[in-house]
Amino acid sequence: MNESDIALAHRLAEAAGAAIRPYWRGAFGLETKGDASPVTLADRASEAAMRAILAAERPDDGVVGEEYGADRPEAERIWVLDPIDGTRAFIAGRPLFGTLIALIEGDSPVLGVIDQPIIGDRWIGARGRPTLLGERPAKTRACAALAQAHLATTGPYLFPGEDQPRFEALRGRCRDTLWGGDCHNYGLVASGHLDLVVESMLKLHDFAALVPVVEGAGGVMRDWQGRPLGRDSDGRVIAAGDPVLIEQTVAALA
Amino acid sequence: MNESDIALAHRLAEAAGAAIRPYWRGAFGLETKGDASPVTLADRASEAAMRAILAAERPDDGVVGEEYGADRPEAERIWVLDPIDGTRAFIAGRPLFGTLIALIEGDSPVLGVIDQPIIGDRWIGARGRPTLLGERPAKTRACAALAQAHLATTGPYLFPGEDQPRFEALRGRCRDTLWGGDCHNYGLVASGHLDLVVESMLKLHDFAALVPVVEGAGGVMRDWQGRPLGRDSDGRVIAAGDPVLIEQTVAALA
Repeated sequence: MNESDIALAHRLAEAAGAAIRPYWRGAFGLETKGDASPVTLADRASEAAMRAILAAERPDDGVVGEEYGADRPEAERIWVLDPIDGTRAFIAGRPLFGTLIALIEGDSPVLGVIDQPIIGDRWIGARGRPTLLGERPAKTRACAALAQAHLATTGPYLFPGEDQPRFEALRGRCRDTLWGGDCHNYGLVASGHLDLVVESMLKLHDFAALVPVVEGAGGVMRDWQGRPLGRDSDGRVIAAGDPVLIEQTVAALA
Repeated sequence: MNESDIALAHRLAEAAGAAIRPYWRGAFGLETKGDASPVTLADRASEAAMRAILAAERPDDGVVGEEYGADRPEAERIWVLDPIDGTRAFIAGRPLFGTLIALIEGDSPVLGVIDQPIIGDRWIGARGRPTLLGERPAKTRACAALAQAHLATTGPYLFPGEDQPRFEALRGRCRDTLWGGDCHNYGLVASGHLDLVVESMLKLHDFAALVPVVEGAGGVMRDWQGRPLGRDSDGRVIAAGDPVLIEQTVAALA
C-alpha cells in the first residue's frame, strides 16, 4: 500500500458518490434480494463505477464487492467494496449510509475509506498514517471505563441467538446507547464523538474498511474474543476509541 | 396564523441554526440535567436566540421552551421551542438532530418547523398550506397496510411500562424498522421516504411542531388512541404518511 493506492481510494469514493447522488431521495429502483435486504440501482451503479476504475488501474488485484461478487479473491491484495452500507437508511432519505472501500494485503486491512456522499463526511485511514476526516486528522477520545462509554449500534435486533443476551449485558454497562447509523458510527468513533460500536453479523465488506479508519485515529478494532479482524473473521466486531475499552468490552460480552 | 408568522418561523430557525453551528463537532459544554438527558451550551444558545426574537416581535404571545421554561403559557397563541431535539445525536456528531418550532393557537398546532441546520433540511408546515422541504412541496406516500410499512423510532427502550409490549406488537407487524433519528424521522414521513413513526414519552415541545409538517404533507398525527394531538396529549404519538395506517396502528398498539 502506497500513496498511489490512497489517491486511488479517493477516486473510487468520488466515483461512487457521483453514481449515488442522482438517486438520493429520488426515484430509484427498489428490489428485494433473497435475504430481504433492500438493493437499489444506486448500489449497483456505485459498485460498477468503482470496479471499472479498479479493472483499468489495478488489473492484478482482487476485487470483492457486495453486489457483484469476487474476482481473484485469493490475490495477495484485494479491494473490498460495499457500495452503500446502510441501504435502509439510504432508502429512507437519511444521510448516514456510506460507501466502504478497503484494501487488504495478506490478511490485514491496510487502507479504508468511509464516505458519506451527501453530507461530505469522508474518513480515510491508511496503515502508518493518521486517519483523516476531510483534510483534518481524526483522533479518538479517551474513555477509561464502560460506565462512561457512549455506545452506538445500528439496531437492537441485529444480534442472532446467543449474541443478543451478550450484547444486552454489554449495553447495560455502558453510559448510553445511540441507535441507527451503520458505518457512520465508526467514523464518529474515529473522530472522538462516540466511544464504542459493537455489532454482529457483519460481512467482510461491512467491516474491512472500518479497521484502518478507527486504528489510524488511535482506536482499536477486534472481534468479540479480542482477536484482530481479518478475512475470515466471524462478523462480530468491536470498535473502541480508547484501547483500554477492548478488554472490558470482551469481558462484558463473554 | 398568517404569512408573517411563517416568515418569523423561518427567521427563528435561522437564528437557532446560527447559534448551534459553532458548537457542531467542536468543544461544547456538556452537563447533565436531573433526568440525565444531556444539555449543551448549544441548546441554550439556540433557545435564547429564538426567545430574544419572540420577545421583540411577539410580546403578547406565550413562549414554552425546553430549556428556559414557560412565559405566558395560558396565552391563546404560544410558541413552543425545542432548541435541539436529539441532543444525544448532536453530541455524537450525527447530523439528524433538529430545532423544533411550533405555533399553537387554542389547542391546535397550526405552524411547525423541523430544521436540521447542518445538512440544511428544513420542513415547514402551516395549516391550510402544503408542507415544504426547502422550497419544494413535501408529500407523503401511499402505504395501504402495516405489512408494507417502513417504521422508524428513535430507540427500542424509550417506551415505559406497558408501552413496551404494545410497541413490540406493532413493530412485529411492520415491514421493517429504522432506529435512531429523533425529529428527522417525521420529516422523512412528510417527504414520503418513511411510512410510520411511533414514539412515547414525548413532551409538547417534542411533538407540537411535527403535526403541521406531517399533516400539511398529506399525513396524519394522532395519539395511541387515535385522538388529535394537543397541549394536554399524553406524549404517545403516531405519525402516518398514509392516513389509512392510523386505524391499523391504533389497533396494533391496543
